[in-house]
Amino acid sequence: MVSRCQFTNNYHEVTVKAVNIGLIGLGTVGSGTLSVLQRNAEEITRRAGREIRVIGAAVRDVSKPRPVDLDTLMLTQDPFEIVNHPEIQIIVEVMGGETIPLQAVMQALDNGKHVVTANKALIAIHGNEIFESAQERGLMVAFEAAVAGGIPIIKAIREGLSANRIEWLAGIINGTTNYILTQMDEAGCDFGDVLADAQKLGYAEADPTFDIEGIDAAHKLTILASIAFGISLRFSRVHVEGITAITSEDITYARELGYRIKHIGIAKKSGDGVELRVHPALIPKNRLIANVNGVKNAVLVQSDAVGPTLYYGAGAGSEPTASAIVADLIEVVRTITTDPENRVPHLAFQPGAIIDMRILEMEEIETAFYLRMNVINRPGVMASIATIFGHGDISIDSVIQKGQGRPNEDVTIIMLTQTTREGNLLEALGEVEKLETVNGDVVKIRLEPLS
Amino acid sequence: MVSRCQFTNNYHEVTVKAVNIGLIGLGTVGSGTLSVLQRNAEEITRRAGREIRVIGAAVRDVSKPRPVDLDTLMLTQDPFEIVNHPEIQIIVEVMGGETIPLQAVMQALDNGKHVVTANKALIAIHGNEIFESAQERGLMVAFEAAVAGGIPIIKAIREGLSANRIEWLAGIINGTTNYILTQMDEAGCDFGDVLADAQKLGYAEADPTFDIEGIDAAHKLTILASIAFGISLRFSRVHVEGITAITSEDITYARELGYRIKHIGIAKKSGDGVELRVHPALIPKNRLIANVNGVKNAVLVQSDAVGPTLYYGAGAGSEPTASAIVADLIEVVRTITTDPENRVPHLAFQPGAIIDMRILEMEEIETAFYLRMNVINRPGVMASIATIFGHGDISIDSVIQKGQGRPNEDVTIIMLTQTTREGNLLEALGEVEKLETVNGDVVKIRLEPLS
Repeated sequence: MVSRCQFTNNYHEVTVKAVNIGLIGLGTVGSGTLSVLQRNAEEITRRAGREIRVIGAAVRDVSKPRPVDLDTLMLTQDPFEIVNHPEIQIIVEVMGGETIPLQAVMQALDNGKHVVTANKALIAIHGNEIFESAQERGLMVAFEAAVAGGIPIIKAIREGLSANRIEWLAGIINGTTNYILTQMDEAGCDFGDVLADAQKLGYAEADPTFDIEGIDAAHKLTILASIAFGISLRFSRVHVEGITAITSEDITYARELGYRIKHIGIAKKSGDGVELRVHPALIPKNRLIANVNGVKNAVLVQSDAVGPTLYYGAGAGSEPTASAIVADLIEVVRTITTDPENRVPHLAFQPGAIIDMRILEMEEIETAFYLRMNVINRPGVMASIATIFGHGDISIDSVIQKGQGRPNEDVTIIMLTQTTREGNLLEALGEVEKLETVNGDVVKIRLEPLS
Repeated sequence: MVSRCQFTNNYHEVTVKAVNIGLIGLGTVGSGTLSVLQRNAEEITRRAGREIRVIGAAVRDVSKPRPVDLDTLMLTQDPFEIVNHPEIQIIVEVMGGETIPLQAVMQALDNGKHVVTANKALIAIHGNEIFESAQERGLMVAFEAAVAGGIPIIKAIREGLSANRIEWLAGIINGTTNYILTQMDEAGCDFGDVLADAQKLGYAEADPTFDIEGIDAAHKLTILASIAFGISLRFSRVHVEGITAITSEDITYARELGYRIKHIGIAKKSGDGVELRVHPALIPKNRLIANVNGVKNAVLVQSDAVGPTLYYGAGAGSEPTASAIVADLIEVVRTITTDPENRVPHLAFQPGAIIDMRILEMEEIETAFYLRMNVINRPGVMASIATIFGHGDISIDSVIQKGQGRPNEDVTIIMLTQTTREGNLLEALGEVEKLETVNGDVVKIRLEPLS
């Protein structure tokens, strides 16, 4: 397969071999991939040394009009027609979902084809199995687009930081939740209103559960933790909290105290185990990552040699995701004849060097906390709370009181604790909530200094 | 050469081949490299699949005590003893300077050895020649550590963004100047005092010329531009301004107007050419890069598919630089048996695909400007200035006046222009400076919205 490819300037009429690609899925990300490959064909061939040619695509509806040039493309409704096509060397899986993609990817590997995917659920849940099959067959499965869209974070951690022991990483890895929290902060609106707006603007899905409940972020965190620490993928062990309980009130109080509330995924090596958790957190406002707003993503990585590094950019969208897919394609094309043992390993560490580390229970984790509670303004209230906290070995860093403070009326108390064992805090709050002078549940949000 | 390597956990007693390394230079960066390789030997071997073993080092003084374990190391004062050593497969050049490193690197390539270097001057000035020799011989020359220290920015641009047409990039790529400007801003001190302080703290060299005059940043910008646009290295064509003319007064006025002053390197595709320039600039304070402070570095890259991405971290120092060197070592080790034609090309684009683009003259460049001038408060002053600017097609965005404004006394005028051709502005300022009512020269600092 040899085609001629014209360049402007002085790179004239170089004869380059073409590599044939098949797409599974031609929705937002698939169309973006095709657009980028077509528009930047010249630069891509100048970089890859080969022409990257999409020759077929599997779509749900072959008759649907699409905003890309499909002239030279074979369209089919059957993904397996692409997967089994003898002239296709690399499969790009961008259909989403789990069942069909898993079957298609496993079949592609059986057929000796390399795979590029943007499917975070597929990798987080079935990655161990997929990589094992790829490794046995000497094939590549590339998944840069599965985490933080167009930010080359997999590459940065897996290759750029390969000299380091990674200590922890914290990421804003879901654009929908970051957009909602930013809007709640800037416009002072409530969660429900902002969500409705985000849906209108296309920043949130009609069914936003995966995003706002933190599941999408947990998929991505699973992958990041694995390549950072050299552990196998353990999606089921991620502690997941969404942002539905965050109020604009808490965002305002946090701001008064010098913090922003962000929805983050944290993976941390901690003594004998690993913490894996997705939840809202207060972050000091002078940290760069606290100023990542709107739909943008960022990942902060703390490593032993280089210290903190941060990677920022578009975490979703058609062309940003395509940027990562096409970068993976270029890489697969470049290394297609390379000895498999010398390639960058799927999970950053050599297959035999993946180890098992204990995933910590949330009770064992140590963080500071923001607490908000409603109490009756009566002598001795603070003393009873302080006594309970004292027994639990919980120190208070600062307290602010909101409300007139007339005797026997309600006041709002906001507290920042020092770093404390989560188990101790939960136990203490259980007792605090039983006090007659405390109304309702105590709101608690973790505080992460990220330093 | 096979050695046994023990791992904790379940990666027991794997037999891994060793690759032998020779260091040229064992100063700050060389010692850091040795420390990181020794401390993280287990993780590095888990990632690379080989043991990376330093067997020799060339130093200025073999008797000098050093803070690293040199037990198994052959020390010599002759770099060529390392370069010609038959058992060394990869040379790490971290001695700095130009003449000896160039000879050593060319000799290493002649001897069939791969090279890793942190030497930005060497690459910016002699890179074309070095890469040509490496390419002919099928060898790798890796230089991640030459730009922005531990931030994997070469990898991000060369591989992570390979799907994109890069439109422009702007970087804070010199820690010394960023530290000085941050201190001038935060403490309100003058350039000279902060520089003296920075020298005491080790953030500036005894002879700080290379940093504060922008030469170091120009070396790095040369390399970034080349891998971003696929052009050959053109150090001599970079427009270079340092920070010695920046006053704390201008920093304060800029802050009032909503900007920070940063020393940045900008490379931009612009019509038929490329802009290459290093100079101080006003940056809107809400941009992430405007909040990169102290000795930290950051590079913002604007690309057509992914949009803006930013990379932040330590731009210098022993272990941050070592982080990049060791990452390069791991990469060279991984690809050591790979077909040369399939490797990532030195300058991101295939050797035959490097093109020549015109480097623009500064007069052709369009930016906005911050202007500060001292004028005599007299009727008609503003009108004469405005007339001159009007003839030059220069629009004023905002004006602030400092001083009591009594008739015939001096007042300070600060103006922000709209985007204008630099040639027009210089011509207009020449005329403005000739006005009787204008005292002295007009201070001008470029304003970059970076969006």
